[in-house]
Amino acid sequence: MSQFSSLLITNCSQLVTLAGPSRPRLGLEMRDLGIVDDGAMLVRDRRIAAVGARNEIEPAATDDTEVIDVGGRVVMPGFVDAHTHLVFAGNRAEEFEMRCAGMTYQQIAERGGGIRSTVRSTREATEGELVTAGQKHARWFLQGGTTTVEAKSGYGLTVHDELKLLRAIRRVSETTSLRCVPTFLGAHEIPDEYKTQADKYVDLIVDEMLPVVAKENLAEFCDVFCESKVFSVTQADRVLSAAKRLGLGLRVHADQFTSSGAIDLAATLGAKTVDHLEQTTRDSIAVMKKLDVQPVLLPGSVYAIGSQKYAPARAMIEAGLPVVIATDFNPGSSPTTSMTMILSLACTQMKMTPAEAVTASTINAAWSLNRAHEIGSLEPGRIADFVIHDAEDYRELAYFFGNHRPHAVFAAGVRV
Amino acid sequence: MSQFSSLLITNCSQLVTLAGPSRPRLGLEMRDLGIVDDGAMLVRDRRIAAVGARNEIEPAATDDTEVIDVGGRVVMPGFVDAHTHLVFAGNRAEEFEMRCAGMTYQQIAERGGGIRSTVRSTREATEGELVTAGQKHARWFLQGGTTTVEAKSGYGLTVHDELKLLRAIRRVSETTSLRCVPTFLGAHEIPDEYKTQADKYVDLIVDEMLPVVAKENLAEFCDVFCESKVFSVTQADRVLSAAKRLGLGLRVHADQFTSSGAIDLAATLGAKTVDHLEQTTRDSIAVMKKLDVQPVLLPGSVYAIGSQKYAPARAMIEAGLPVVIATDFNPGSSPTTSMTMILSLACTQMKMTPAEAVTASTINAAWSLNRAHEIGSLEPGRIADFVIHDAEDYRELAYFFGNHRPHAVFAAGVRV
Ligand SMILES: [Zn+2]
Ligand SMILES: [Zn+2]
Repeated sequence: MSQFSSLLITNCSQLVTLAGPSRPRLGLEMRDLGIVDDGAMLVRDRRIAAVGARNEIEPAATDDTEVIDVGGRVVMPGFVDAHTHLVFAGNRAEEFEMRCAGMTYQQIAERGGGIRSTVRSTREATEGELVTAGQKHARWFLQGGTTTVEAKSGYGLTVHDELKLLRAIRRVSETTSLRCVPTFLGAHEIPDEYKTQADKYVDLIVDEMLPVVAKENLAEFCDVFCESKVFSVTQADRVLSAAKRLGLGLRVHADQFTSSGAIDLAATLGAKTVDHLEQTTRDSIAVMKKLDVQPVLLPGSVYAIGSQKYAPARAMIEAGLPVVIATDFNPGSSPTTSMTMILSLACTQMKMTPAEAVTASTINAAWSLNRAHEIGSLEPGRIADFVIHDAEDYRELAYFFGNHRPHAVFAAGVRV
Repeated sequence: MSQFSSLLITNCSQLVTLAGPSRPRLGLEMRDLGIVDDGAMLVRDRRIAAVGARNEIEPAATDDTEVIDVGGRVVMPGFVDAHTHLVFAGNRAEEFEMRCAGMTYQQIAERGGGIRSTVRSTREATEGELVTAGQKHARWFLQGGTTTVEAKSGYGLTVHDELKLLRAIRRVSETTSLRCVPTFLGAHEIPDEYKTQADKYVDLIVDEMLPVVAKENLAEFCDVFCESKVFSVTQADRVLSAAKRLGLGLRVHADQFTSSGAIDLAATLGAKTVDHLEQTTRDSIAVMKKLDVQPVLLPGSVYAIGSQKYAPARAMIEAGLPVVIATDFNPGSSPTTSMTMILSLACTQMKMTPAEAVTASTINAAWSLNRAHEIGSLEPGRIADFVIHDAEDYRELAYFFGNHRPHAVFAAGVRV
């Protein structure tokens, strides 16, 4: 764009704007994508200047406008992935093979596998090595059409290593086109050295990690993995309350394997999201509705561990909740950066409609990250994060599965 | 390659050769991939000239050799996809949406949806339009690392339209780098105009379609969709026996929704493969083993229709069968061209190991198409169809899922 003052994106079979009310889309409202057929969009100074029908927008182009004819393709906001573990060292392909061959998580954990194996690699890695790994993952996200991710720490589990991870996340955000919203997840797992004294590890989080994270502005959110044999509701309460006092927003890993009371806690503390929810009941759905918490559903991790119990997306949508879907990208339970894969899973396994899935991965996700004023929709004033998809109809993004690659991805008006 | 007389592929972290005995890999033999660590390969005249450790192969390069350093990546044979419906008109994204929203297949069929909707579009399309659609699909396959596909007719269901499809398949094979092995599937569905007289449609297949298909050499195999409410075992027998007399190889869609006796028929007639097998029992597995039929498993279609009943892959492997996995690419039940997606499904949902899945999608698939002397492995004399994958270890191909795209794909020694 350097030599041009503006950019015209035109001949869009569908311009999927996601324009709408200034709040998350609730339940069946998620089916309204604000589509402009035969649409066009004008971009200026990295932001969207105008959006509308082709014959309205094209006349606004000047000699100084770069014109991109997208050839009858779909144009949509960049995906917003509201739950990722973006930065870690190593991968767990070997452990994956053991699981395929019939070994259980328990057996793998006993051999030193699972999250603890990634913690070991991550502790051994330098900050520079983590930045390199994160940049590689960032490239994957961008190639798949995702322009913003929430990115959690949680593979360090010492003061030093958690800060190292959060600094690496910041550096990935500064050095790539991927916008990263950092979340502190010191309470991801109880590290080996605190195995029999989890409360002492919670002390460390509350007394030493959180104050530095807040002071150095290294995270916008704090998250806890609240699950039996990991952090109890009481321990989660201590971490989240401390984070809240320091001004951080709250997110909670809840109800993945067991239903634990985490949702009530999250709702009471005013958490922005509760994530996973595979075991969530109707009662908890009512609590979420009442106290205005957004559910973040992670079907990739259900699929990849070979479970068949997905979160009750339809019940949540029927109840009017502002559902979000995300990849949960991580080296153990969800090794995918592909949001179109998550659309496919949402539709085929959780019976969301393609439109609901698109809303859940763009504007609703942006709301859950306090970013809806800037991203998640194509409206004048928003940052020009958008994707030209190789499809004529947005439903094809969920319908064809397995090797979707966008035609072009733009972050802040610049082609990635 | 024009200005060079040979091509050296070197610095492969793993050269996955699939070299082995001159027969399909049986059961647990599928775990042996013939991997050369730090390997290299020499290509000459579109064929593989030598394969081995880097220090053995590199000295064979001359001034006239083009050298490609793959940077420590995995190099493997191109995938061989032994079950696809490569050519059809239109897509069924709208019907997909209806299914997400809770409509059943039955309801969709009553509204004129399902296979019959693709038959209508395909009949309306010209041969040229079908070639264009097939070329687009061929590009998708190649981009995903697949260099050979079996390609079925079956959306025409008249003499004219079935021949039109088979000619389009031939044309796609001639005009793209994708090698297509054509299969005549006139018995894919009973067309509307024969709804109450299926036997008359079988007459048409046997008396009019098959003789022309054989005479014009338009197909190497004949397939039948043997299923309750489609073609009975008796009808399938008539079609397959006629095809056999004309010298065609046989494949059968069997046991997808109901267990029908198709496997016994296929085994008795000496069919090369039986495909789908979601409902297959231990008895049928024993029949396959005894009569030397290869099972072709299609987990993409189980996934995409939201069923959770996958074929019993482990039981087949334990029984010593030479298992094949394939995409079943088609616009209704399996809209994917991605073999790495099928590897992921095979491992996470059917509990195959990554090595078993790789064998099932390369050398075993090549055997099922009578092509193992030319493709499916990297051995001297074979056609140089190979893929440089963006991975250091082949297990990553099944482990990471959703947006795998190879670093480079070569068909007959030429980069696609
Ligand atoms: Zn997570
Ligand atoms: Zn099929």
